[in-house]
Amino acid sequence: MCPAKVTGGKPRGWIIPIGGGEKKVSSSTILSRFAELSGGDDARIVIIPTASQLDDAGHRYETVFGEMGVRRIDIVDLDTRESCEDSGQLALLGRATGIFFTGGNQLRLSTTLGGTSAAQTIRRGNAVGVHVAGTSAGAAFICEHMIAVGKSGPTPKRGMATLSPGLGLTNRIIVDQHFRERDRIGRLLTALAYNPFATGVGVDEDTAAFIGPDDVIEVFGSGGLTIVDPSDLVHSTMAETHQGKPVSLIGIKLHILIAGDTYDLATNTALPAAAQD
Amino acid sequence: MCPAKVTGGKPRGWIIPIGGGEKKVSSSTILSRFAELSGGDDARIVIIPTASQLDDAGHRYETVFGEMGVRRIDIVDLDTRESCEDSGQLALLGRATGIFFTGGNQLRLSTTLGGTSAAQTIRRGNAVGVHVAGTSAGAAFICEHMIAVGKSGPTPKRGMATLSPGLGLTNRIIVDQHFRERDRIGRLLTALAYNPFATGVGVDEDTAAFIGPDDVIEVFGSGGLTIVDPSDLVHSTMAETHQGKPVSLIGIKLHILIAGDTYDLATNTALPAAAQD
Repeated sequence: MCPAKVTGGKPRGWIIPIGGGEKKVSSSTILSRFAELSGGDDARIVIIPTASQLDDAGHRYETVFGEMGVRRIDIVDLDTRESCEDSGQLALLGRATGIFFTGGNQLRLSTTLGGTSAAQTIRRGNAVGVHVAGTSAGAAFICEHMIAVGKSGPTPKRGMATLSPGLGLTNRIIVDQHFRERDRIGRLLTALAYNPFATGVGVDEDTAAFIGPDDVIEVFGSGGLTIVDPSDLVHSTMAETHQGKPVSLIGIKLHILIAGDTYDLATNTALPAAAQD
Repeated sequence: MCPAKVTGGKPRGWIIPIGGGEKKVSSSTILSRFAELSGGDDARIVIIPTASQLDDAGHRYETVFGEMGVRRIDIVDLDTRESCEDSGQLALLGRATGIFFTGGNQLRLSTTLGGTSAAQTIRRGNAVGVHVAGTSAGAAFICEHMIAVGKSGPTPKRGMATLSPGLGLTNRIIVDQHFRERDRIGRLLTALAYNPFATGVGVDEDTAAFIGPDDVIEVFGSGGLTIVDPSDLVHSTMAETHQGKPVSLIGIKLHILIAGDTYDLATNTALPAAAQD
């Protein structure tokens, strides 16, 4: 799936991958920024707990957003492909100003929502201004190219990351989450090495990349955001190497950003917080 | 990568995955149809042999297209990422009316062209009418989601197909080639099961799917085209199953098409040759 076509003059909504493990309290800068963007008290937030198998996955966020003053919060149970065609659920998605995917298993999201009217409604909404956030598995799912599963470790190896089509709100980035906590730079490098056209975004726990309609990322939260920019890659052995073997990559650029820093995906430029206007 | 935005009133060029092993003679209905679409005698055909490591990969096609009367044929050696930024090569790509990718290894294409000006030029060209064909590895590469490597066999199993971002001329389909010859229905089903939003197109050897600007596929050549339509999928165990284990999929639709048949990707409708106007 590709970014839905923008139909009017409305800017795209924000796209917000969160690294998982974010503080689920009303003082969270990540969750409160999402609620504010979505309209604050007047927001209509829809929570999608599909990735999780825990009964209370959606309710914890409902409580936090409620404590922030958001009055209209719905948990939409998209647990089967049939439910992704339900007119009542689609109406709730269609009215949302902000949509939030919980964590769990990203393949549950792609196999349940992929190709359904629910996915189409979210894509069209985002194209005309609805903000879409996802944490952990939800973060992996929102992009065009999703890391479905993979192995830990620093050195990229062929086959270390398994890609799947995701929701497709953007194809400029490939996201990996729980980034330092689960030692995932190797699998993100592997995913990028298959085709070095995208930018890698490794998101630590309790950290988020707020990607604006202008494709500038703003970092929020207590951890780091690792940007892997392969645009100057000059050499790669990915095509020649065997499954499970290390891959040589020459010319990757790396930035570690923290709260307040920004990264412009259109120009591949990182700016420290101190340099902001 | 996603289909480049169409900038004017010009229709998109044809997208033509060929299953490999096509007859490299001037009587080939596949190669002659491609040459005709590209302008016949007045065509400007560019051949990209990047996928292959054989020196004569491009020259065999140059000879055949020449025998058909095409006067302007260039072999563009995009063998390094640096060469994909070369202004001379880009000028040739920019003037082409038809672009042809040879077979070989699709990861050589994605790792060499991915994110470069050459890839961008081809994408922009196709969006305004340049026809792009690829055989074997070239067929795999031209779509947004490319099967990079995989295993043979009829039953889909988790991990049986490794996906990579491709050139991205369309994301409506996932292509597999040498389809019956290498027993690949299992890996195509696996690729679709990760996210059942796309349509699977399995292309036998000496067979091609000519995908028009209206997203209707016309079948050419001596073999079969297998369409795998997961749009009515009701059940999938992909998210729960373990690596290497079989996947249950209920509700897949299958069509086997031959030369003259068509398939409309927008409406998921197959029409036999006899029913054409």
